[in-house]
Amino acid sequence: MTVELVEVDSRAPKILIIGGGAVAIPYAWRLQKGGAEVSVVCRSNYGLVAKEGFMVNSEVYGTEVFKPNKVFSSAAEFEDDSFYDYIFVCTKTLPTIANPADEVQRFVKSDKSIIVLIQNGIGIEKPFVEHYPKNPLISAIAYVAASRKDNIINYGKLLLLEHAIYKSQAISPESGNAISNGLQKMFNKAGIDIKMYENSEKMRWRKLVINATFNPITVVAGGYRTDEILLIPEGNDLFRKAMRELLLLARIVLKEPLYDVSDEQAIDNSFKLFATNPLKTINSTLSDFLNKKPLEHEVMLKNAIEIANKHGFPVPILSTVYTLLVLLEKKNI
Amino acid sequence: MTVELVEVDSRAPKILIIGGGAVAIPYAWRLQKGGAEVSVVCRSNYGLVAKEGFMVNSEVYGTEVFKPNKVFSSAAEFEDDSFYDYIFVCTKTLPTIANPADEVQRFVKSDKSIIVLIQNGIGIEKPFVEHYPKNPLISAIAYVAASRKDNIINYGKLLLLEHAIYKSQAISPESGNAISNGLQKMFNKAGIDIKMYENSEKMRWRKLVINATFNPITVVAGGYRTDEILLIPEGNDLFRKAMRELLLLARIVLKEPLYDVSDEQAIDNSFKLFATNPLKTINSTLSDFLNKKPLEHEVMLKNAIEIANKHGFPVPILSTVYTLLVLLEKKNI
Repeated sequence: MTVELVEVDSRAPKILIIGGGAVAIPYAWRLQKGGAEVSVVCRSNYGLVAKEGFMVNSEVYGTEVFKPNKVFSSAAEFEDDSFYDYIFVCTKTLPTIANPADEVQRFVKSDKSIIVLIQNGIGIEKPFVEHYPKNPLISAIAYVAASRKDNIINYGKLLLLEHAIYKSQAISPESGNAISNGLQKMFNKAGIDIKMYENSEKMRWRKLVINATFNPITVVAGGYRTDEILLIPEGNDLFRKAMRELLLLARIVLKEPLYDVSDEQAIDNSFKLFATNPLKTINSTLSDFLNKKPLEHEVMLKNAIEIANKHGFPVPILSTVYTLLVLLEKKNI
Repeated sequence: MTVELVEVDSRAPKILIIGGGAVAIPYAWRLQKGGAEVSVVCRSNYGLVAKEGFMVNSEVYGTEVFKPNKVFSSAAEFEDDSFYDYIFVCTKTLPTIANPADEVQRFVKSDKSIIVLIQNGIGIEKPFVEHYPKNPLISAIAYVAASRKDNIINYGKLLLLEHAIYKSQAISPESGNAISNGLQKMFNKAGIDIKMYENSEKMRWRKLVINATFNPITVVAGGYRTDEILLIPEGNDLFRKAMRELLLLARIVLKEPLYDVSDEQAIDNSFKLFATNPLKTINSTLSDFLNKKPLEHEVMLKNAIEIANKHGFPVPILSTVYTLLVLLEKKNI
């Protein structure tokens, strides 16, 4: 495994990105700029992207056309036997519709390919470990404020990736470390702010506290942006109470606090992060809802609620929001 | 007071009904049939009603044109100095928009007029007792499945009125009893099923358990009918949990259980009542929401939440639903 990684370092890394959405493309663009060979599997925007590439507008890096090395339209159309060092899974996680690991089957041709899950929610790694037990698996969280329309991506200053090797018996701790470091170096070379975690669980819960509250509540409240609800006292209070449930639940699951600061301070910090929104972007759940697409409520809410139930810990606000989101989705699609 | 009542009994009672909505009109029609003189103050549908009357379609009583004895358009236009035995207040209760007692000021010309509040929510009597301390006040709850479009009212089999004299120092217990009996007789004569309570509080909480759960949840879930959500397991479960909060809260407030049966049995009974809906009617809150009108969330939810807070009793589901309803309303109107 280590020998492989030395080889990877010595040539341009080859990356396949599954998902041509607003979260994936800013990274894809910068990674190509950093020297990687980046191919993208798009679905809804394939036609435009194959013809024109992506038009990326960044507050930091300016406006440019980003042409992936190759563009593929879907798993069914995918015919490429070359070896990819990294397979980035940047699609939505909808386990009630299909097994997320089955969906990427056609792309994973070697157990040497490192699978990188850049997705929200908790419990998302399990189907991948089961299906690809020999592939190194990196669990990652993207912090990027971005919006997409067709092949146009707008994004702001924030472009951070958090990651951790997903620990499994097939990968030794040393190999795991080397793999994480390889990813880190590649992102650093691309000028992307990156943070490595020892263990993916804490990293995922931290993002969950944001995703499982802001995202669904903006939808069930009628289609506000997060920064708009934060300004309405009742909405601000509801966010706070929902976050408290998750911070307490995370403390029970992780057997330690999620943050070094108090829960109230952690909430205040999240609020500050979302209080301004110069791009007026809406979150992915609201965007999916408005586009009548299925919502990621299973990995963002239901998995957390089931964990809470197992621990006998009440999460009435999350449960209420989850149920309303499921009902709204049924009406909407 | 008793002498007055004997006089009322000996001639046709004169009733002024404030509000030409689906809840009031079925009673108004039957009361007129029963011999009362019934005038109605309409707002949105005044033009049509003044010209044509109401077209009432009842499963029990058939279809007929109901012409009130007089029709008035609004408080501002109201010019009638005659004495009304009863003033039925059947408008929505929106204390954040205006004081409900102020709104009926022009209609209450004598402190002998019996004010009958046929409205949902709790805590609604207070402003009336303060403004009209000498008038007998009857607190009432309507059970009627009905819908209105313009001047057309459709309603089903259910036509029940529950009522209780609102106890105050100005009215002796004997007078109070006589007043309640007078109302009871008048409704019996009109063939309307009626139930008298000793104390209005229990009566109002029983209706609240239904109104503060079914009504707002059908709105925040995206516009279902109650019977539709009852068929969806997640929705059914949410109704149940929300009702549990209210049944427990009512037990604390009333210092006795709200029903003789267990809370779970009481919930099952409510579910049975709403499981079928042959008229496919939607509840008043959803109807108001779809018509972009203000919602009755203060007396149906906020008053209950404030009482819960005073008792230190957590009602997270109700609070969440309340907040979402307020946010939805802000977006909607």
